Amino acid sequence: MASSQLAIIVLAAGMGTRMKSDLPKVMHPLAGRPMVSHLMDTISGLNPDRVVVVVGPGMDQVAEAVAPAKTVVQGERQGTGHAVRQAREALADFTGDVLVLYGDTPLITRETLERMLAERRGPKDPAVVVLGFKPRDAGHYGRLVVGAEGLKAIVEWKDANHDQREIPLCNSGVMAIDGNRLWGLVERIGNDNAKGEYYLTDLVSLARADGATCSFVLGEEEELLGVNSRVELADAEAVAQARLRDRAMEDGATLIDPASVWFAWDTKLGRDVVVWPHVVFGPGVTVGDGVVIKGFCHFEQCSIADGADVGPYARLRPGAEVGARCHVGNFVEIKKAVLEDGAKVNHLTYVGDARVGAGANVGAGTITCNYDGFNKSFTDIGAGAFIGSNSSLVAPIKIGAGAIVGAGSVVTRDVSPGALAVTRANQMELSGWADRFRDKKRADKPNGK
Amino acid sequence: MASSQLAIIVLAAGMGTRMKSDLPKVMHPLAGRPMVSHLMDTISGLNPDRVVVVVGPGMDQVAEAVAPAKTVVQGERQGTGHAVRQAREALADFTGDVLVLYGDTPLITRETLERMLAERRGPKDPAVVVLGFKPRDAGHYGRLVVGAEGLKAIVEWKDANHDQREIPLCNSGVMAIDGNRLWGLVERIGNDNAKGEYYLTDLVSLARADGATCSFVLGEEEELLGVNSRVELADAEAVAQARLRDRAMEDGATLIDPASVWFAWDTKLGRDVVVWPHVVFGPGVTVGDGVVIKGFCHFEQCSIADGADVGPYARLRPGAEVGARCHVGNFVEIKKAVLEDGAKVNHLTYVGDARVGAGANVGAGTITCNYDGFNKSFTDIGAGAFIGSNSSLVAPIKIGAGAIVGAGSVVTRDVSPGALAVTRANQMELSGWADRFRDKKRADKPNGK
Amino acid sequence: MASSQLAIIVLAAGMGTRMKSDLPKVMHPLAGRPMVSHLMDTISGLNPDRVVVVVGPGMDQVAEAVAPAKTVVQGERQGTGHAVRQAREALADFTGDVLVLYGDTPLITRETLERMLAERRGPKDPAVVVLGFKPRDAGHYGRLVVGAEGLKAIVEWKDANHDQREIPLCNSGVMAIDGNRLWGLVERIGNDNAKGEYYLTDLVSLARADGATCSFVLGEEEELLGVNSRVELADAEAVAQARLRDRAMEDGATLIDPASVWFAWDTKLGRDVVVWPHVVFGPGVTVGDGVVIKGFCHFEQCSIADGADVGPYARLRPGAEVGARCHVGNFVEIKKAVLEDGAKVNHLTYVGDARVGAGANVGAGTITCNYDGFNKSFTDIGAGAFIGSNSSLVAPIKIGAGAIVGAGSVVTRDVSPGALAVTRANQMELSGWADRFRDKKRADKPNGK
Repeated sequence: MASSQLAIIVLAAGMGTRMKSDLPKVMHPLAGRPMVSHLMDTISGLNPDRVVVVVGPGMDQVAEAVAPAKTVVQGERQGTGHAVRQAREALADFTGDVLVLYGDTPLITRETLERMLAERRGPKDPAVVVLGFKPRDAGHYGRLVVGAEGLKAIVEWKDANHDQREIPLCNSGVMAIDGNRLWGLVERIGNDNAKGEYYLTDLVSLARADGATCSFVLGEEEELLGVNSRVELADAEAVAQARLRDRAMEDGATLIDPASVWFAWDTKLGRDVVVWPHVVFGPGVTVGDGVVIKGFCHFEQCSIADGADVGPYARLRPGAEVGARCHVGNFVEIKKAVLEDGAKVNHLTYVGDARVGAGANVGAGTITCNYDGFNKSFTDIGAGAFIGSNSSLVAPIKIGAGAIVGAGSVVTRDVSPGALAVTRANQMELSGWADRFRDKKRADKPNGK
Repeated sequence: MASSQLAIIVLAAGMGTRMKSDLPKVMHPLAGRPMVSHLMDTISGLNPDRVVVVVGPGMDQVAEAVAPAKTVVQGERQGTGHAVRQAREALADFTGDVLVLYGDTPLITRETLERMLAERRGPKDPAVVVLGFKPRDAGHYGRLVVGAEGLKAIVEWKDANHDQREIPLCNSGVMAIDGNRLWGLVERIGNDNAKGEYYLTDLVSLARADGATCSFVLGEEEELLGVNSRVELADAEAVAQARLRDRAMEDGATLIDPASVWFAWDTKLGRDVVVWPHVVFGPGVTVGDGVVIKGFCHFEQCSIADGADVGPYARLRPGAEVGARCHVGNFVEIKKAVLEDGAKVNHLTYVGDARVGAGANVGAGTITCNYDGFNKSFTDIGAGAFIGSNSSLVAPIKIGAGAIVGAGSVVTRDVSPGALAVTRANQMELSGWADRFRDKKRADKPNGK
Repeated sequence: MASSQLAIIVLAAGMGTRMKSDLPKVMHPLAGRPMVSHLMDTISGLNPDRVVVVVGPGMDQVAEAVAPAKTVVQGERQGTGHAVRQAREALADFTGDVLVLYGDTPLITRETLERMLAERRGPKDPAVVVLGFKPRDAGHYGRLVVGAEGLKAIVEWKDANHDQREIPLCNSGVMAIDGNRLWGLVERIGNDNAKGEYYLTDLVSLARADGATCSFVLGEEEELLGVNSRVELADAEAVAQARLRDRAMEDGATLIDPASVWFAWDTKLGRDVVVWPHVVFGPGVTVGDGVVIKGFCHFEQCSIADGADVGPYARLRPGAEVGARCHVGNFVEIKKAVLEDGAKVNHLTYVGDARVGAGANVGAGTITCNYDGFNKSFTDIGAGAFIGSNSSLVAPIKIGAGAIVGAGSVVTRDVSPGALAVTRANQMELSGWADRFRDKKRADKPNGK
């Protein structure tokens, strides 16, 4: 690829009325992060010299999401040509290549953009390279009219004649443009049309009127899925998930039912990991080699080290660090806590703001009482300790290494290493009481059971 | 549409042998209610003057489900013509239009039925309007033979010649019939065929023999899916779910993985609701605006107010009312209980027959002990109260506003507002006991761990 | 079918490099058991006289999985012809029919294999019968060239001319061979090709060179899915699951969302069972008639008797036996325990190593404390007993029939039938303490909440 400067303009000013949302359209997430962030990530792979994002008024959230890219505000929505024009000042002195992308078309691949740039920088020296695609249902998309001399025109559906409507090659709107010619062309885009808007597609006819060549590159329908409604958002999510699932399997994880596993964009799975059906990976999850994840788990911002066995029904919240060969079982919630190697937390337990030492065993129904309504406090469980079932550990508290806590205890004072701690009232038995209670209840409520 | 009376005959007498079920076929549910109820609901949108449902002997459940529609019993199963004849007495004096529908074809849309009625009442004045469809696989369906003069005949597959078998237009069985002519035609249907049954499809040839016109309207395959087996029931459920999912998204909810969310027919979601993967909405659920529903939730007959945050793994049972901005967390079950605004029930808790006051915090592992084996009793938790972890609240009980219950307490007497209540035995420590216990165990079982 | 001896050679030596796994490829499970076990099960339906499995060096796991079938080791991987040659000694004296199958093509059906054998034993007396199939995308598969005299040749894609590449009929590699001719042909397979390997496909040209007839039988693409990567493993799993789901529905179970229910190969469901979305059946599960399984359940090696109601979020682990009309509710884990008829374990409970007597009610939050860090002990709950919420039953322990355990008790001594047992400290109330606590906290942390 010839060496050349690259600027990218991202159009992200659309309100997305059909989303029926208070959130700007491009901020709706895919695979756990805003759709525009996916696009920005793809863009960064091209090492652009400049990036300008055109946003709508009041879209501070978008500006934050795309930072450090520069944002410019399109005050009124007067079409794609008008939107691109907002970037003129930021790119006034720029003479390299310019890519125009869309914040609501987040699945476009770097490979496709690289092919567009290669075409732009190739021997034909086209003023404009348009990204085309051949959808299963071409519907009312604009069509690309192609001849021996390259791309002749973009024809809108409503203006197309019968033959043009039969063309399978459609316009995606994505363009690579010679920066030397861009602003000269853009300023000539008119708005003499039904909507009174400025359309970027006019660049092709304007460039050809100047005697310049235009051309096209073919993309995949899947990567050009635009998001204008929640149904389309779900369609895009499905594409993003399919990519993530395939990547996980190619890297050596078994997904027993891939369609039921949901990944975040940054999920990392080791080799020979087995993921059972119905698992959700929120953002920020790292899983080591040989880990078995049983069904119905929910993870976010946590790590699971090699050889651990997790679930079913395990919820690991932010800050959960599960050590090597640990067992985390069913109906267990772990938050901001380190489980050192080989620790076991198997049933119906809440561990929050804690350390569980290596090889310690936390019994069923244990609760770390980490919150008093005002502050969070820490629970430190030593290596090899054994916490009896249904115990409450009232933080701040330290259970010494190798200590045992008796079942059902409420532990409020530190326990020494190797000691037994227990809080327990005497067991009283009232002989025959249950029988008399039932007799009375049945007498009160003769038809009861 | 010309003003005319409308009667609807629903054929629902089929046993559904292939369902291998003790439940009458049309009582098998779709989206949480009997399939026949879906059809009755669609019918009610047409404001019919009369509805007659033809059921089999002993199908009292069906009669109940379709009430107040009239039911008549088809004693013997002698074909669709025979079934329609059972409605004759109920419609003896009726001269408007008659629609014949099928209880096991519950997905038909009102729009399609309205088009049939418009055709029936249109300028051609057809005696019979048949609903046709073009299935992906026409297989052995009867075919509609159409000419310039309209619908010429319905030809059964086994009677069709080679050319007729190539016809893509198939018979759905659904008909709109001129009530003035219906009974005269029906009484002439014969049973001189292989099965000795009376077929309603004969109406077309009988009407044409009288010199009357017949015509057809085109429906969608999807809405004409008939349910004769559990596999077809699952197919119909998938169609019903796809409709409900699309409606939710069009109304402004994000379904991150629509295919993993199951809706009941009456689920109501607000705007900017986000539903994570793997959620089940049973019947009777209402969700306000801006609610976030994390994965693996299970709801029925409950409500969630604006801005609440629910799940993952939250189960809301009948009578659960979650107030605005409440938090309901993981492994929490709520039944017949009101959570007032801003209350939090975050972990491993059962709240049943209770009120949780505004802003109250119910700690992990709390159980409302609402049942003594005979009666259910009420737990009243005041606004701003704080219930320590692993507590048991033995109902009937009242925890005053702002009171605190210490962790691990079993509360059997009311707690005053602003007070601390606690039940707790002293913590005893036996120094070195755990070490000695392990030494002994290891000595007993030298290879143990 | 003519009476004849049958030997089967299974090629299972492949390492499966693309799986990126330490587990031999054919040991990766489908529907809960190694893929090679599916194939062995299909094979056993043919009652073969001999079975020889060709494995790679060090694949003891495979040898164990296919036992008592004989295994031979292919020391070096020199192609399918070489692999078959390893079975020569084991079949030296064998003169019947020989089927060659592949351990990584586990979905092939018995019906297809029977058709191949019928063809082999039919009037044409073919030396070799090849299993062909017509994939949706024929890609680079070898093609079967067929003429009036039967199968003329198998042409590899790279050797095929333009016309041959248009042939839709592809080679699956599966063959039925006349045992009298097998070894004479196999020893003539050469390795004069690009990879220097011995290809079993050469058998066809070698047989035809001898003047023998060859023929083919047509199979389905789905059953011939080969597993070489984790993505293909997931595809094969999907086929296996679709078969199991259809079988369950045909046998009279309702699967509300079949795609979300995962079955093991041996799951048994009764009639009129209803399975809600999102359920996982591990191996060894039997479910009686009329059982309702709500969503999000996870079962393995357990049984559920007629009329029981289970879930949502119930986990039944190995050895759980749920009796007739029992209720097992949410966030309940049961392991190695018998629930006698009508027992109820409804919420947030762990029952392990236990008996729960008929009609007993185990309250929310109950834990059977079955483990002391060294040994597992038994809990015996008598018929009709009532265990109050949040109780801990410290095993070994026996709760007598009809006894009641008070909420929050830690029971360490046996309870007599009909008695009440309770361990409970007195409830203390510190008036105004909570108010003062909050005042102090707010003073400490003025902006806190």
